[in-house]
Amino acid sequence: MSASQPSVGVIMGSQSDWPVMKLACETLQQLDVAHEARIVSAHRTPDRLTEYAKSARDRGLKVIIAGAGGAAHLPGMTAAMTPLPVLGVPVKSRALKGMDSLLSIVQMPKGVPVGTLAIGEAGAVNAALLAASIIALNDGDVAAKLDAYRQAQTDSVGEAPEG
Amino acid sequence: MSASQPSVGVIMGSQSDWPVMKLACETLQQLDVAHEARIVSAHRTPDRLTEYAKSARDRGLKVIIAGAGGAAHLPGMTAAMTPLPVLGVPVKSRALKGMDSLLSIVQMPKGVPVGTLAIGEAGAVNAALLAASIIALNDGDVAAKLDAYRQAQTDSVGEAPEG
Amino acid sequence: MSASQPSVGVIMGSQSDWPVMKLACETLQQLDVAHEARIVSAHRTPDRLTEYAKSARDRGLKVIIAGAGGAAHLPGMTAAMTPLPVLGVPVKSRALKGMDSLLSIVQMPKGVPVGTLAIGEAGAVNAALLAASIIALNDGDVAAKLDAYRQAQTDSVGEAPEG
Amino acid sequence: MSASQPSVGVIMGSQSDWPVMKLACETLQQLDVAHEARIVSAHRTPDRLTEYAKSARDRGLKVIIAGAGGAAHLPGMTAAMTPLPVLGVPVKSRALKGMDSLLSIVQMPKGVPVGTLAIGEAGAVNAALLAASIIALNDGDVAAKLDAYRQAQTDSVGEAPEG
Amino acid sequence: MSASQPSVGVIMGSQSDWPVMKLACETLQQLDVAHEARIVSAHRTPDRLTEYAKSARDRGLKVIIAGAGGAAHLPGMTAAMTPLPVLGVPVKSRALKGMDSLLSIVQMPKGVPVGTLAIGEAGAVNAALLAASIIALNDGDVAAKLDAYRQAQTDSVGEAPEG
Amino acid sequence: MSASQPSVGVIMGSQSDWPVMKLACETLQQLDVAHEARIVSAHRTPDRLTEYAKSARDRGLKVIIAGAGGAAHLPGMTAAMTPLPVLGVPVKSRALKGMDSLLSIVQMPKGVPVGTLAIGEAGAVNAALLAASIIALNDGDVAAKLDAYRQAQTDSVGEAPEG
Amino acid sequence: MSASQPSVGVIMGSQSDWPVMKLACETLQQLDVAHEARIVSAHRTPDRLTEYAKSARDRGLKVIIAGAGGAAHLPGMTAAMTPLPVLGVPVKSRALKGMDSLLSIVQMPKGVPVGTLAIGEAGAVNAALLAASIIALNDGDVAAKLDAYRQAQTDSVGEAPEG
Amino acid sequence: MSASQPSVGVIMGSQSDWPVMKLACETLQQLDVAHEARIVSAHRTPDRLTEYAKSARDRGLKVIIAGAGGAAHLPGMTAAMTPLPVLGVPVKSRALKGMDSLLSIVQMPKGVPVGTLAIGEAGAVNAALLAASIIALNDGDVAAKLDAYRQAQTDSVGEAPEG
Repeated sequence: MSASQPSVGVIMGSQSDWPVMKLACETLQQLDVAHEARIVSAHRTPDRLTEYAKSARDRGLKVIIAGAGGAAHLPGMTAAMTPLPVLGVPVKSRALKGMDSLLSIVQMPKGVPVGTLAIGEAGAVNAALLAASIIALNDGDVAAKLDAYRQAQTDSVGEAPEG
Repeated sequence: MSASQPSVGVIMGSQSDWPVMKLACETLQQLDVAHEARIVSAHRTPDRLTEYAKSARDRGLKVIIAGAGGAAHLPGMTAAMTPLPVLGVPVKSRALKGMDSLLSIVQMPKGVPVGTLAIGEAGAVNAALLAASIIALNDGDVAAKLDAYRQAQTDSVGEAPEG
Repeated sequence: MSASQPSVGVIMGSQSDWPVMKLACETLQQLDVAHEARIVSAHRTPDRLTEYAKSARDRGLKVIIAGAGGAAHLPGMTAAMTPLPVLGVPVKSRALKGMDSLLSIVQMPKGVPVGTLAIGEAGAVNAALLAASIIALNDGDVAAKLDAYRQAQTDSVGEAPEG
Repeated sequence: MSASQPSVGVIMGSQSDWPVMKLACETLQQLDVAHEARIVSAHRTPDRLTEYAKSARDRGLKVIIAGAGGAAHLPGMTAAMTPLPVLGVPVKSRALKGMDSLLSIVQMPKGVPVGTLAIGEAGAVNAALLAASIIALNDGDVAAKLDAYRQAQTDSVGEAPEG
Repeated sequence: MSASQPSVGVIMGSQSDWPVMKLACETLQQLDVAHEARIVSAHRTPDRLTEYAKSARDRGLKVIIAGAGGAAHLPGMTAAMTPLPVLGVPVKSRALKGMDSLLSIVQMPKGVPVGTLAIGEAGAVNAALLAASIIALNDGDVAAKLDAYRQAQTDSVGEAPEG
Repeated sequence: MSASQPSVGVIMGSQSDWPVMKLACETLQQLDVAHEARIVSAHRTPDRLTEYAKSARDRGLKVIIAGAGGAAHLPGMTAAMTPLPVLGVPVKSRALKGMDSLLSIVQMPKGVPVGTLAIGEAGAVNAALLAASIIALNDGDVAAKLDAYRQAQTDSVGEAPEG
Repeated sequence: MSASQPSVGVIMGSQSDWPVMKLACETLQQLDVAHEARIVSAHRTPDRLTEYAKSARDRGLKVIIAGAGGAAHLPGMTAAMTPLPVLGVPVKSRALKGMDSLLSIVQMPKGVPVGTLAIGEAGAVNAALLAASIIALNDGDVAAKLDAYRQAQTDSVGEAPEG
Repeated sequence: MSASQPSVGVIMGSQSDWPVMKLACETLQQLDVAHEARIVSAHRTPDRLTEYAKSARDRGLKVIIAGAGGAAHLPGMTAAMTPLPVLGVPVKSRALKGMDSLLSIVQMPKGVPVGTLAIGEAGAVNAALLAASIIALNDGDVAAKLDAYRQAQTDSVGEAPEG
């Protein structure tokens, strides 16, 4: 968690999503994007969800990242209650390997968008990068850090495979 | 719609779900189960959903049937906010033929159940029959009508195919 | 198993379904809903199935929970032979991870409903909760216990992820 | 339908399966295999199913072809109640295009087999051909007709595409 | 393998299919159905396949059981070259868990049937049982053994789950 | 197309994607978000793609919406070459109904995000809304229009279904 | 069909595949690649398949394009019997929209490759282009024509969508 | 890697693809086909991809084998920028087991072909064999080695299963 006013809220349906979703937080940390992490269960704590989503803009958040698995309603319900951009991370489910999570998040009806990332860990990291790219539109520091992150990533790719 | 105090609430995410969901209402009608039909969009009218779900038991409803398509969050979010039994009808979606609707409804996490029926029209009729069978546990009239309905259904099956 | 007259029958296609289905029994136990657990194989013991389903209402059962995997015919065939509400739990299968179980249970034809829950353990727990919510419609004690269960569940959700 | 004692029983879950299943009958007709066609709904007429399946061997049937769609339980339940070979035809369903029918029929548990054919019309024709090949093991006339059918089929394949 | 003239040929695409397919052989053994087991790869040994399939009837075989995985062409190609009944067992594949094997075997075009069983071990056992039921049509000994097998199977199902 | 400097670039792989993607443009138009529409084929015009993506930020674009079908590489390759937020719209494909388009867009590897919307028309509208919500973070006029759009959407939902 | 010695053989399982596969021929025609088109059914004419595949190299063919649908065994069986490169085109099937065709063709076991193209018409055109690119490796004329084809394709992409 | 001028370029999106893709190199090695292996990430190193693909023909390469997983854009984008035959290997992904990789590679639009092999290790070996068969069209040594490889493969298939 970062000390200053968070601009990204990272929420997840359950403690069990944290091993995946903490990659989003770690990536935001690397890019010095202030953020907060909360457990908000659409199904077990619907009032908390309503309160979180409705107060998000006024609290100064700019982007919400929501991760959930199975019949994953958290991202879409959050998007229903805030005008902020909402990014969804489908967490890999036990039986259907995240296909249920993915479809529950991405197939939103016309009118309420969720920008959906890949299933699992790649999705969590990428949600953070996409959030940062949104913040970067009006924050030169984050823009510079994101550019550096992308350059380092490019530089880290070896020429030939090893082993 | 029926005149007396409704015991079943039939809700759907959009007017476009009505051609499917009205089969639920017609079936309840046949069985003389008092019901009401409402459009309650989880995504476009989240406050209406909260109010509907939270007041349902006090208003005397016994069962809620919720139909929705795509990233279908209506049944699950209703179940999150009422202790009443909630039955879900996956409405056939355009691209994925209702597979997204089905998984979004049935794959609820531990703690908040939705009794899910088949995709589309069969599911709407069957949600009504299942609701009636629940009502029938304490309503001899409905029980008798349901028995008759099932018997008539059995009797209607021809011996040999025709044509 | 509970001492008093069972109101919920928990049946499963095979002993191998028990590790999943016993979660349904444990949940019913927590809510003080009297129940029984039986192995009834649609394919290996069709006569036992017929007898179980046809006598269920007269024996005082109110709800049947049926769990099965693969070409899972137990829930649907039970529903064909009793007017009681039948809830289906798709048990995760070896090759297709429960997608076959799910479709075999949920895609019932018009006229014979099975209220289907999620694949696997979450589905077993939720079948019990849904059964309890049905019982609770006319049993204030169960209603109170279910309310308490739901409240405890809500209270158990931590504010922020840990670890 | 053929005049002599039928050796193949063609059953289907509903009149609506007949346009597909009649291709099975027509193919049996071409091969002079005596057969009968019946509607037997696993879900709407479970008693008829029990009676049909249990009496089939004594009535002189040798093979049963069962076609059904959606949560297709007819082939498997028939196989549960007769020692005769049972062949299953998954009829194309509305929403899921027969994938549900296929999995409900083919994924039978260890101990009760259903020989499953392709979804839809090809499956109906092929069920008849497979039934005929079984009859042919002890019926030289059918064997000869089947050989001729296969030869004609081979001969009918043009050298080069036209049009 | 059995000493007398085999009536069932059990073939498989590769040695790696043997752990699954040997369950077919063991089941035939239990029922005293004479059989042989061979590796016949449609792709690596197409000539052996042609020879095996074309000579099968003359060699006295009555049924062929063919198991294969992935793009599983063995059952269908065998069926193309023999008038005998061919039963297919989809062996579970690495990436797609046997869905590719299943579709490659079951979706045969009109004219050349393969009676397809479940993916994996259940399918191997069931192919043997289905083959035995075909043999049993004209072999009272096998019929009696199959009846006993089925009865024992029914008897083995416990009343209540344990553990 | 809008007269002022565009802040959103709407690109698509082919003229055939336009009937879907123009819904994105119409929605941006409604919200007074300046935008441009271009055909940029990842496969047929890779140089144009490189040029478009690399120059996008300097040209003043803030968000790119990319729609494509089948093996849809346009959104991901654009995201590889610009630090701007990229939103992907899976266009419904002929054979696989957009499931291929969806997976090709959403399953991006760690490091290069694409915020993916629903398959087809809903996705195109929602991409525009999500882009607008990003623009709105620093543009009060767009924020106000988006709020009004959402309110009107909520108000447009009827109480009860009609017809 | 072209007058000179064909270097590409275009084969298909049935006349019904021709509307798709003729796009392969038309594309080869445009590139002046000599070719022949034949119906070769793996299932109905296995001997013709054996003869075609085994003689292909000696007859001077360089590449074989094989199109088939459903349990599509033609490409793989051809590849089993010729050392020439074999390209497979999954023809869209009725029930499963070509997913069965695709998996039956692409999931070949280690040792016998089929280079698989997209489902349906795009796949047929692309098989021709890939065949031409193989021929072009040692035929400057074809190489030049292919380069021109690709350039024209690039040039044909409009700047902005119309309509 | 081989000393002489490589005729096959084996590229992959990431070091993590190497355990699969090295089977392609080992197979080429066995057939004495000169080749090179490179990491070329479509998403992390798009410039390297452009350079690699555009220079490939002039550098003397004849075939490119590209392996990637998830939203696998490497094969298709390579094919967009070289007239050489490109073969794609879908590497098994974490959540969706390579179904996403497969569809992202094989479902290329009309005009830019990728010859796609099976998911995972079989696909990597087969890509090498297909590349070799292309080289063999004008290289008698490789043709002879490929013939020997195939013969050895046929010879290695045992008669009967063991164990």
